[in-house]
Amino acid sequence: MEYLRPHVIMRKGLVGGIRYPRFAGDIAEFLAATLFNTSALAGTAATHKARVELFAPNTALCKITEDLVFTDPYREAPLNRWTRPWLDAEKQAFERDSALKVAAQALKLKFMTSAEALIHGDLHTGSIMVTGEDTRVIDPEFAFIGPMGFDVGAVIGNLLLAYFAQGGHEAARGARDAYRTWILGEAEKVWSEFHDRFLALWRAAPSGDAYPASLFASDDDRAAMEKERGRFLRALFEDTLGFAGAKMIRRILGLAHVEDLEAIADPERRARCEAKALRLARELVVGARGFSGLADVSGAARAIRGAGP
Amino acid sequence: MEYLRPHVIMRKGLVGGIRYPRFAGDIAEFLAATLFNTSALAGTAATHKARVELFAPNTALCKITEDLVFTDPYREAPLNRWTRPWLDAEKQAFERDSALKVAAQALKLKFMTSAEALIHGDLHTGSIMVTGEDTRVIDPEFAFIGPMGFDVGAVIGNLLLAYFAQGGHEAARGARDAYRTWILGEAEKVWSEFHDRFLALWRAAPSGDAYPASLFASDDDRAAMEKERGRFLRALFEDTLGFAGAKMIRRILGLAHVEDLEAIADPERRARCEAKALRLARELVVGARGFSGLADVSGAARAIRGAGP
Repeated sequence: MEYLRPHVIMRKGLVGGIRYPRFAGDIAEFLAATLFNTSALAGTAATHKARVELFAPNTALCKITEDLVFTDPYREAPLNRWTRPWLDAEKQAFERDSALKVAAQALKLKFMTSAEALIHGDLHTGSIMVTGEDTRVIDPEFAFIGPMGFDVGAVIGNLLLAYFAQGGHEAARGARDAYRTWILGEAEKVWSEFHDRFLALWRAAPSGDAYPASLFASDDDRAAMEKERGRFLRALFEDTLGFAGAKMIRRILGLAHVEDLEAIADPERRARCEAKALRLARELVVGARGFSGLADVSGAARAIRGAGP
Repeated sequence: MEYLRPHVIMRKGLVGGIRYPRFAGDIAEFLAATLFNTSALAGTAATHKARVELFAPNTALCKITEDLVFTDPYREAPLNRWTRPWLDAEKQAFERDSALKVAAQALKLKFMTSAEALIHGDLHTGSIMVTGEDTRVIDPEFAFIGPMGFDVGAVIGNLLLAYFAQGGHEAARGARDAYRTWILGEAEKVWSEFHDRFLALWRAAPSGDAYPASLFASDDDRAAMEKERGRFLRALFEDTLGFAGAKMIRRILGLAHVEDLEAIADPERRARCEAKALRLARELVVGARGFSGLADVSGAARAIRGAGP
């Protein structure tokens, strides 16, 4: 009888400093397949609207996201928690940060009105189970027809949280440097493999009601469609960064925290990691347009980590 | 007993060269009130999603729009009609116009996935009845939760069609010049009054789940929100122009035409009006971003009308 290794919650693996060689590729495939195939790029309008109708009643769980991700972290709310008193200044600064609050609300409106595809709706690293050979997604109760970038951003935002948390887990300063490099590499790979797979599915799609293949038959048409796919994926990249940042912030200043950071016993040490994560997260929410690609985000993460005490 | 003047279809009034002093203000009020008040800017997420669910089954009528407005005019489809043979070249050029087709498909995807507000869905000048004292909107069977710009664009696009049609209705060249000026002035007024009323409703809104007032209490917050409202309305303006152009094109190259142009008995004369309307419409679909405001659109309309034979 074959020995079956139990699946582990990806987040626990990230705390433990364990590499999962299939993770980035598998989750990129999951993201591309679910998001593309349930979008109007792949299917008919009737199918798409039937899905919208089917998932529209899932308002209660969406409301949790609307409140806990997009609203509460930016105001005084009784449910908020943060590493006091070390992050009091950051919490207060975010409550007064008009540009950040406006950008977070623009993302919230997008979450409420962009019926792009069937999204998981809560795809953080605690909703992903892994072994060295396999990757599984669990807990789909938040699913509805929403913006694609919310799922991709959830994965990438949680990898970035794990990156900043390593300073709380390493036995000696620098002991987890190679693992940090692995995490940022995985984040880059999630985006690039998602991007390439999504693009391949779209190029091959025969029957979507949006951009129907029958309209684009000439060489000029195909070149114009390639350019349009690039534009679409660039907009999705910016959505992804914005949602990633919003989800990082809610895990540090809102109600629900993550083990990556909570497992750091010394609160002052934890707060140092969290403050750096908040700095990058704010840049992602306010300045997504300024990032040329995910390597650029990795660079910003490294710069922020290197800058502070 | 008071004498009641019968309401007239606005489009017939535009063919007849009649001014309706209440039209622009009334329709701007209708647009602002319906679009703002049924959006997530005004209401709760739960209310918004209940509306999305309620109208999602209206797929058959949306499908008519998706096919007849966004797809058929750009391909060989048996239902298409145009003023042959004079517009054969324009029809063929549009079928080969990769940039135009891509832009039209981007608008189609927005029509299929942007659940912004309850829109009328067919708000051309044949769905509006007027007297000198009153304005009524009829035929709401296409209504669903869609992009706001589709309704605003329907009104403005049909006014622009009426503008280009005047050359087929005037007794002598230039006889309708003053009326042309009135039409473009009305189009500008529809946008500016809609813009101002929408903005006023948003500023006063106490309870929308998107951009909740409770988050924006300081002077800095209020300034940032004013800037954000400007950004939102600029994006809505660009959507409006794109949808206006798409709706103009479908009325000249697609199945369903409009009396403004059909009432021009001489097909060659009609085709001259239509070719100019198509030129502006293409600019609106492909180059909405290049227009600084509706006065800029009026200027382009005048330049195109003056340019040809």
